[in-house]
Amino acid sequence: MGLGTTQIKPMPTFTPIGVIHTPYAQKAPYQPVEDDTQEFRIDLNPEYEPGLEGLQKFRYIYVLYHIHQLQRPAELTVAPPWTENLQVGVFASRSPARPNPIGLSVVKIRHIQGSSIYVSGLDVFDGTPLLDIKPYIAELDTKTDANLGWVGEITDAEHLALHIRGIPHDF
Amino acid sequence: MGLGTTQIKPMPTFTPIGVIHTPYAQKAPYQPVEDDTQEFRIDLNPEYEPGLEGLQKFRYIYVLYHIHQLQRPAELTVAPPWTENLQVGVFASRSPARPNPIGLSVVKIRHIQGSSIYVSGLDVFDGTPLLDIKPYIAELDTKTDANLGWVGEITDAEHLALHIRGIPHDF
Repeated sequence: MGLGTTQIKPMPTFTPIGVIHTPYAQKAPYQPVEDDTQEFRIDLNPEYEPGLEGLQKFRYIYVLYHIHQLQRPAELTVAPPWTENLQVGVFASRSPARPNPIGLSVVKIRHIQGSSIYVSGLDVFDGTPLLDIKPYIAELDTKTDANLGWVGEITDAEHLALHIRGIPHDF
Repeated sequence: MGLGTTQIKPMPTFTPIGVIHTPYAQKAPYQPVEDDTQEFRIDLNPEYEPGLEGLQKFRYIYVLYHIHQLQRPAELTVAPPWTENLQVGVFASRSPARPNPIGLSVVKIRHIQGSSIYVSGLDVFDGTPLLDIKPYIAELDTKTDANLGWVGEITDAEHLALHIRGIPHDF
């Protein structure tokens, strides 16, 4: 394990390539993210617009963003909301309080207009800096034998399974 | 769109939290990543080991990493391997030559030993800096109606669908 550590090189500073707009200005959503009455829009910086060519053919995309409004330090273990007496490792959770505050969401594309991508619900704060967009490719990313991990083991698993969509807003 | 741009704040420098070890020392794999004879290991820095608590209950994880051996600049459009006369936007591809060189892979956990996670094939170079690990949660991440986007439209789609696993190594 020590070998790995010695190989670490300096990492560049990543740069926002756009901004995510959501109805969540100040407080945590804590609500289902699929909401047809709300607007969720990813504004890619206009100079990157050619990079969207062909993206509209995908139904889903990955959105990577900087969790920029985090008010608390990263924790190695977290107590997920709606659970009692359960602590799990931060890497076994989608908690935003992570060593590297990079968020990841899978969203459905509604439509693309210029350098703006209108998407299904995205549970991040308005103004969240965009880091990357990648196509969600069925062949690579749809794991039909995936499980729920510890989420499936707790008493109120169904409740949490719904609520977990809001975990990124556990500020 | 201008509004979004003005809201961008400085982004912190992310820090490697470990190193990914693969058999791919110098050259691109260009081969199926599922290979039981090879070793793929994520060495989390030992101080983060408590963050793995509960992770072993998940079948799949997301691995986020810094694409650190990229030799060429980011491009806004790319010509995917095994295609002819096709250009797609970088955000519609999994090309490593991206504005922010952050890689994302879904891998299966084989076993976890201390702060090391042994996983199914991971098509990155040996020594790749680890940025984050997140659980792949069926409820959130398995999109059974996902599609192949432009990958499904080209003539040699089946070939590419297999080959696309190697696209992150299109150096």
